[in-house]
Amino acid sequence: MNFSDNPIGVFDSGVGGLTVAKSIKTLLPKENLVYFGDTLHLPYGEKSSNSIIRYSKQITEFLLKKNCKAIVIACNSASAHAFEATKEMVPENVPVINVIDPVAKCIKSNYSSNQIGVIGTKATIRSNIYQNRTNPVKIASLETPLLAAMIEEGFIQDSVSKAVISAYLERKELKNIDTLVLGCTHYPLLEKEITTYYKNKVSIIDSGKLVALELQKQLSDNGLLNSSPSKNCDEFFVSDYTSSFEKITASFFGSEISLTELKIT
Amino acid sequence: MNFSDNPIGVFDSGVGGLTVAKSIKTLLPKENLVYFGDTLHLPYGEKSSNSIIRYSKQITEFLLKKNCKAIVIACNSASAHAFEATKEMVPENVPVINVIDPVAKCIKSNYSSNQIGVIGTKATIRSNIYQNRTNPVKIASLETPLLAAMIEEGFIQDSVSKAVISAYLERKELKNIDTLVLGCTHYPLLEKEITTYYKNKVSIIDSGKLVALELQKQLSDNGLLNSSPSKNCDEFFVSDYTSSFEKITASFFGSEISLTELKIT
Repeated sequence: MNFSDNPIGVFDSGVGGLTVAKSIKTLLPKENLVYFGDTLHLPYGEKSSNSIIRYSKQITEFLLKKNCKAIVIACNSASAHAFEATKEMVPENVPVINVIDPVAKCIKSNYSSNQIGVIGTKATIRSNIYQNRTNPVKIASLETPLLAAMIEEGFIQDSVSKAVISAYLERKELKNIDTLVLGCTHYPLLEKEITTYYKNKVSIIDSGKLVALELQKQLSDNGLLNSSPSKNCDEFFVSDYTSSFEKITASFFGSEISLTELKIT
Repeated sequence: MNFSDNPIGVFDSGVGGLTVAKSIKTLLPKENLVYFGDTLHLPYGEKSSNSIIRYSKQITEFLLKKNCKAIVIACNSASAHAFEATKEMVPENVPVINVIDPVAKCIKSNYSSNQIGVIGTKATIRSNIYQNRTNPVKIASLETPLLAAMIEEGFIQDSVSKAVISAYLERKELKNIDTLVLGCTHYPLLEKEITTYYKNKVSIIDSGKLVALELQKQLSDNGLLNSSPSKNCDEFFVSDYTSSFEKITASFFGSEISLTELKIT
């Protein structure tokens, strides 16, 4: 078996990274995934930098044991705080992709004259990483800490999500924007509702497709694209089983998913 | 200065315990409080038992250094997981009160033939502590993890709180109840809205007043009631400053509060 036949490791604090995993599968249907959702420790957005690094390292260790040929950090908080630490422990021939750099590159290339806003967890927004990576393009930012928790609890396309989305998006920080970056991989699950709120007048940038394109490029550059026929044997792991995780995963990847609970400390 | 002139230590993971602190001040206006809100680590309801014990011990150490004559664990998750550990490190002459036992006692005495439900965080509900303490009186239970996060973010008496409250209280687990225990000290901040939801047809039990009465009894039994005139020098500490904490504290205790940020790890 070639190294290029090995799976791609994807991790997040919960279901959010599934939006990235789905984009990867859509662009690269021959690839197999090992997904880890650290539901025991979510939300990462409320955790200290040290804790996020510790969890990310443990998960990366697990993904390397599963022989992953590439690692995708499908979580903005972990991308902001644990990208360097993750890269350090991964062999040189294994690309590590975070969810922020592809978005920052796209903004600098295509949206530099737009009025851009970004929403995200406390950890992501307070790290100021989007502004740092898109300088000199200015970005308005707003912490929206309730959104990820709400999604993890299964409140999507209902009266709760509608009320919470409106309460955040009407804040003065986001007044006058024409482009909104979803700075948390959970948020694409709300994309339809956010688009409806803005009556299609604001462009939404979600990282999933941009990350999948970057991954494709790096796999291709390193001769790591899977050349075998797809065996469709994606595996999903969570550190704390929740029914809403299983439900959302099944809605993305079909009802026959392989989901295993695996504790990390 | 007499030991009985010393303050009462009260702690919670955030603003929730202020509802208990307020009940204590109302019943015992001569007493002074030292309040610690561990906002850096909230919500405790999502934390492991070990973490809750570690944080509780650190806070108790701080409250003892402030010469507190009694400790009130004004958090259900900490009461469920860290009561014994806290008691062990406190001198015998310092009463430790948790928020669950006074409620359980009241239910067994006064509500044994009612249809009772309890709502709380994941940590509290999964510990099954209310059912264990009220046996043989049966209690229906429901995890409502979004409520505390919502309150900490300042969503009270608005469209968000209304939607979230309805989404939880209409669940089948709480069908047919005539009495609801607010199993998290944050929830009294929603009492008016919960009462409105139920159109006054469900009795609400919140622990604040019951805890204040139990504290009064234990202070009195131990000769620890403050006999000096009130100096009104309550002190408030948080491990991570948030404007919503200051806002809610000021709404409870007046705008001239003393609020200090103090990190614990």
